[in-house]
Amino acid sequence: MITSARQRASEYQYRFNARFADYFDTLTDPEGGALDVPPRGAFPSRALDLVRDMSLRGGKRLRVAFLYEAAALITDEPVPGLDEAAISIELLQTHGLIHDDIIDGSAVRRGAQSVPHAYRDEFPDRPDTALGLAVLAGDLAAFLSLRVLATADLPPDRAAAMTAVQADAGALTVIGQFLDLERDFGPVPDLDLLHVVTEFKSTRYSVLAPLRLGLLATGADLAPYDSELRRYSTALGIANTLRDDWLDLFGDPAAVGKSLGSDIRSGRRSYAVRALLAAATEETERKVLDTALGDPQCDDDTLDRVRAIARRHGVDQSVQADADRYAHEASTLAGSWHSRWRTQAVAFFEHLPAWTAARDR
Amino acid sequence: MITSARQRASEYQYRFNARFADYFDTLTDPEGGALDVPPRGAFPSRALDLVRDMSLRGGKRLRVAFLYEAAALITDEPVPGLDEAAISIELLQTHGLIHDDIIDGSAVRRGAQSVPHAYRDEFPDRPDTALGLAVLAGDLAAFLSLRVLATADLPPDRAAAMTAVQADAGALTVIGQFLDLERDFGPVPDLDLLHVVTEFKSTRYSVLAPLRLGLLATGADLAPYDSELRRYSTALGIANTLRDDWLDLFGDPAAVGKSLGSDIRSGRRSYAVRALLAAATEETERKVLDTALGDPQCDDDTLDRVRAIARRHGVDQSVQADADRYAHEASTLAGSWHSRWRTQAVAFFEHLPAWTAARDR
Repeated sequence: MITSARQRASEYQYRFNARFADYFDTLTDPEGGALDVPPRGAFPSRALDLVRDMSLRGGKRLRVAFLYEAAALITDEPVPGLDEAAISIELLQTHGLIHDDIIDGSAVRRGAQSVPHAYRDEFPDRPDTALGLAVLAGDLAAFLSLRVLATADLPPDRAAAMTAVQADAGALTVIGQFLDLERDFGPVPDLDLLHVVTEFKSTRYSVLAPLRLGLLATGADLAPYDSELRRYSTALGIANTLRDDWLDLFGDPAAVGKSLGSDIRSGRRSYAVRALLAAATEETERKVLDTALGDPQCDDDTLDRVRAIARRHGVDQSVQADADRYAHEASTLAGSWHSRWRTQAVAFFEHLPAWTAARDR
Repeated sequence: MITSARQRASEYQYRFNARFADYFDTLTDPEGGALDVPPRGAFPSRALDLVRDMSLRGGKRLRVAFLYEAAALITDEPVPGLDEAAISIELLQTHGLIHDDIIDGSAVRRGAQSVPHAYRDEFPDRPDTALGLAVLAGDLAAFLSLRVLATADLPPDRAAAMTAVQADAGALTVIGQFLDLERDFGPVPDLDLLHVVTEFKSTRYSVLAPLRLGLLATGADLAPYDSELRRYSTALGIANTLRDDWLDLFGDPAAVGKSLGSDIRSGRRSYAVRALLAAATEETERKVLDTALGDPQCDDDTLDRVRAIARRHGVDQSVQADADRYAHEASTLAGSWHSRWRTQAVAFFEHLPAWTAARDR
């Protein structure tokens, strides 16, 4: 069944990528409804190209799968507005990635150059211009994200409700980004703060908004289900972030596809780092951790010592056990939907959490 | 009649400022419809405070006047949704100001500290964090701008149409910002490019979107009027920018309320700077201009020499004459609306351009 959930997700991914490319191809087409871009200017086209490239270099598109499967809970007929919602979700993601890469100074994103670094290479003598262009490229993706829903050819009540969901998700994600920066200041945060960061920075726009949009697109009334959708999203979001944090410290670099230890090097208080700091109180251990945390140059030997300390205190097992527990909670919740919604889509939501909590093993 | 248009504008300003403060007071109120902010975190509240302060330090609120007067073309009854549209318009402006101040490195905005500089003062040892927080504060204002319309308690067709206008205006304004940066690269731009920059960077969101929103809120169909609204907005937008550019070079510092010559110092190819570069072809003149343009330290004596060159070539008169001509064009267009729309509001749009082109004299 896990394979089947993955299989369905990869079908959505394939179909969506073609649809997304089509969106960009027609975005500035003078025919009906397109963005009325000016007849002049190389900077606007370059920005649109960078937004397009970053968008189309997408990963597993799980958000898109959540959206289509949420609609499939209600119907297996085609649902108008889902494609626009999927595009909106992924443009919001592009917006977040571009501005994140400004904040973190990341050179690489989705396996190629980040947008801020692309601009830096194009304007080596004008770093302020490069920064400005990157800020604007992120802004452009944000407005396009809401525009594609607000201008969708849908019954007005659906367009309005769906746009409201995305505008709300956008605002709350920014709030989550503030919390994410705050988490790495001051004393080691408690677990509750990490849950709040996860909820606002990731879960709202990555899980909850797609679920709400999928149901709204079918014309369903959200009110009776919204608190259940929130509980499911919160549990799945925590499981997913716990697994992310586990992988960054304990993962297999070949399976994860990027270099590990970034949370240690950037001093990010991830779930794993927090657990490690709470467990390793002995003086020699503390010294190793204090040297490693927040040191961008932290080498692999030091990282190995950090890992050894973590394993000695069972941090690898406890973080993964927590991920499994939250995944189980989400799965159990989804299991209760069988009486109400369509079996195959319910099964997707039931089996997805276990896959999330075990991915890249 | 000019006084009367100003009088009406200042009444809107007064009423709107109270309404805008109220919006921020209830934004995170747990009662119905508010932004569901997390229970934790000092960074989110600080960002909301900075967005609030920048928003409430607004100037003449002419955009808000355009909005209410556009509705008053149709009816003198109260129109639901206008307050939300006004808040959306001014939040979009706040978004633009915050990100502009990152791009330009401005320390001061609306008579007090800019948001990026406020964060820099709060995190003197962490310039990257300060930059990130400023980017996020601008993002927050953008999402709130669209959220307030998308979640407004309005007939869904109006909420959807009005949100679409603002999402479109947001995207096109960003496009205009790209052109604005591009204008200051390469050879001296032709007049047509400056018109395109004005149209996209300013007019669309500052004039056209408020007009569209005001009419849409009354339930009017835009289609029969939209091309006229565009012509009016374009002419008024150009008159306004020409006057801005004139004031920056030739204005009375006491009347303008800020230091002059910023276009010269930043090397910005304003209408006045472009006209100056086109007219002053003599070698000694060119030397003065080449020294002054783009020199942040350019002193008042040099600025006086630049002004003398400009006056010798009649640039002060030609730029102002252009402003008056575009203002007259806008006014004449509005004059033709008397047969169709309510007299007092038509008179506002008829007399506003002349005031715009003569302000701070």
